[in-house]
Amino acid sequence: MAGRNWFNELHTPSSGILLEIGRPIAYRKSPYQEIWIFHNPLFGKVLVLDGCVMTTEKDEFFYHEMLAHPALTTHPKPERVLIIGGGDGGTLREVLRYHEVKKATLVELDREVVDLAKQHLPSLSESFSDPRSEVVIGDGAKFVKTAENGYDVVLIDSTDPVGPAEILFSEGFYRDIKSLLGKDGVLALQCESPFLHMDFIKSQKKILSSIFGKVNFYNTVVPTYPGSLWSFAFASDTVDPLELKRKPPEGLRYYDERVHRAAFTLPPFMRDELEG
Amino acid sequence: MAGRNWFNELHTPSSGILLEIGRPIAYRKSPYQEIWIFHNPLFGKVLVLDGCVMTTEKDEFFYHEMLAHPALTTHPKPERVLIIGGGDGGTLREVLRYHEVKKATLVELDREVVDLAKQHLPSLSESFSDPRSEVVIGDGAKFVKTAENGYDVVLIDSTDPVGPAEILFSEGFYRDIKSLLGKDGVLALQCESPFLHMDFIKSQKKILSSIFGKVNFYNTVVPTYPGSLWSFAFASDTVDPLELKRKPPEGLRYYDERVHRAAFTLPPFMRDELEG
Repeated sequence: MAGRNWFNELHTPSSGILLEIGRPIAYRKSPYQEIWIFHNPLFGKVLVLDGCVMTTEKDEFFYHEMLAHPALTTHPKPERVLIIGGGDGGTLREVLRYHEVKKATLVELDREVVDLAKQHLPSLSESFSDPRSEVVIGDGAKFVKTAENGYDVVLIDSTDPVGPAEILFSEGFYRDIKSLLGKDGVLALQCESPFLHMDFIKSQKKILSSIFGKVNFYNTVVPTYPGSLWSFAFASDTVDPLELKRKPPEGLRYYDERVHRAAFTLPPFMRDELEG
Repeated sequence: MAGRNWFNELHTPSSGILLEIGRPIAYRKSPYQEIWIFHNPLFGKVLVLDGCVMTTEKDEFFYHEMLAHPALTTHPKPERVLIIGGGDGGTLREVLRYHEVKKATLVELDREVVDLAKQHLPSLSESFSDPRSEVVIGDGAKFVKTAENGYDVVLIDSTDPVGPAEILFSEGFYRDIKSLLGKDGVLALQCESPFLHMDFIKSQKKILSSIFGKVNFYNTVVPTYPGSLWSFAFASDTVDPLELKRKPPEGLRYYDERVHRAAFTLPPFMRDELEG
């Protein structure tokens, strides 16, 4: 390893990952965070915010497909979609694969993330040029207080629940989202690792269950994320997360109808905590 | 990170993991490999062979439950079980949870691994004291050439397919195992990461399919393994891997009947390669 440059991220105080910085690509200090993109021989381009890997070209599909498609295949008519966060564009790209979607609004706090993704991560950010997409640069928590209602699906594609993203996991924020959702509205959100953050996931279950009639969790794998096993919450008053209303788009790499059902099958160590 | 001791393992030439060595526990150079056990604040005791993490107290259940239980729940009458490798005892522990199992033989090349596991990893190695267990110190590839036949289930709990373990992924070895298996015999083996080693998995599919009538793959997650998503092959002439013959034991943390079915649900990127 001598003579080579390495990035490391601690996922816990005593464990983490190592990635060779094959080639630095971009670095900016925005008003909100440090944004860094480098190229790794295995993972391709790696987007790092404040020292945490957000996404990589090679493993982003596990995450973005699984954040977007369960909500999009189960909502009866997903025409208006709101994405909070997700400035790299990957979630927006998955949402816009559905011809049913007439408008997808993405609210990202940090303009620099969107700009750098457009410049350096075209496989994720291609969707920004879709005429159905609308990008709002601003605070998601403030946005949902005053936005017009009538969204069919809201997806929260946030960073970890510390610092600026902490509010995105709060009861008030979820209540504001609930008020924006139309009848049959669905909320899906990234919800950390069941391997490392089970207490956090339980706390989210409690908050969401006080607001929505049905709250379920499902999993994917993200090799570069802490704990690798990664969960999402799915909340709605009316929509059964296991009742698919449409086929997913062709060409996906991780998600299909069968994986959808498998993803909602929680292992006993999660089920005991969440469905007990 | 200054002033602390860190273990790192490269999973590929440009990526890997970092674990703090909270406390060194044991180090031995055996005739076969370097064996190292240290304590990490998150993962508990970590067993490292030739620089690769084999298992940790905290995440071993994802692997050992998923290697053992799919074969044990689907075989019509699993009385005699053979484990190749698995010197830490974790797979043996899972096998012996079934009262149907009358004898489980474990063939481990390296006596020092068994001895160190007995001494330092009691939660895995407790099964060595079960009267139904038999430990043979020796070469698994040689063992299967001369062993008595009549095994119901064979589990291969090997290290990666390089060096001494390479032969454990060869056609000749699988043919020897086939000849040991009784009617309705089942072979299950750890088969590397679909995220990183898809070509290897495809090659195994080809070899196994030339020997067994039914070959399927299934997945688990192992946070400390390369790529995190981890696969197993399931091979038999008669046993349908989705037809469960008995309930799994109580008290498992990752495996149950529903997870069994979910685990055999391959994501499109695997299915396109393996079931096409």
